[in-house]
Amino acid sequence: MEFEQVGKMFCQHYYGMFDSNRASLVALYRDQSLMTFEGAQVQGAQKIIEKFVSLTFKEVKHEVQTIDCQPSLTGGILVVVSGQLKTDTDAPHRFSQMFHLVKEGNNFWVSNDVFRLNYG
Amino acid sequence: MEFEQVGKMFCQHYYGMFDSNRASLVALYRDQSLMTFEGAQVQGAQKIIEKFVSLTFKEVKHEVQTIDCQPSLTGGILVVVSGQLKTDTDAPHRFSQMFHLVKEGNNFWVSNDVFRLNYG
Repeated sequence: MEFEQVGKMFCQHYYGMFDSNRASLVALYRDQSLMTFEGAQVQGAQKIIEKFVSLTFKEVKHEVQTIDCQPSLTGGILVVVSGQLKTDTDAPHRFSQMFHLVKEGNNFWVSNDVFRLNYG
Repeated sequence: MEFEQVGKMFCQHYYGMFDSNRASLVALYRDQSLMTFEGAQVQGAQKIIEKFVSLTFKEVKHEVQTIDCQPSLTGGILVVVSGQLKTDTDAPHRFSQMFHLVKEGNNFWVSNDVFRLNYG
């Protein structure tokens, strides 16, 4: 189904950008975008990118393991991801992330983003 | 903030019902509700409850560890949960779950539900 293809392509694009040049993710957020990162709430593309850029690791690699997609009531797409994250020389961390994608023309932007590392 | 209180109260209510009488969760879903349970997609309150009731464990206990809430574009609430799940005498499993809650009068119903066990 189309929403699944879009969700999977989005993840490939998003984590590819995150892992190579995370400042470039600014293009995927808007002023209304909400992000909750390890419990800290941030609003707006600029502040979200400042948060990403402030993260202290130099190298990062996301390995996506599951992607679940659903259409939302507004015609957007909910995308729920789980996987592993490797930063610098640290042991891998499990993470989960949720996005709500809003369609605008032929593109999508992120209205909601919740990221958590999964410990224990 | 109000959406956080609602999200937390919803989780307490939801997992309390799940762990004591999961058939009663039918009241929280509608015909439009979408659930993705370990990658399997189900639509509609009746089919979602059939799925829950078909799960083979007798006893289940959810221990919620993190709850992240955000307002959605439609005035609903996105709730992202992580925690541990104990079934019968099995070792605990980590899980993550995402809900989108839609307000209707003074109540909320679940339009979207994505559940995953987190392995590894």
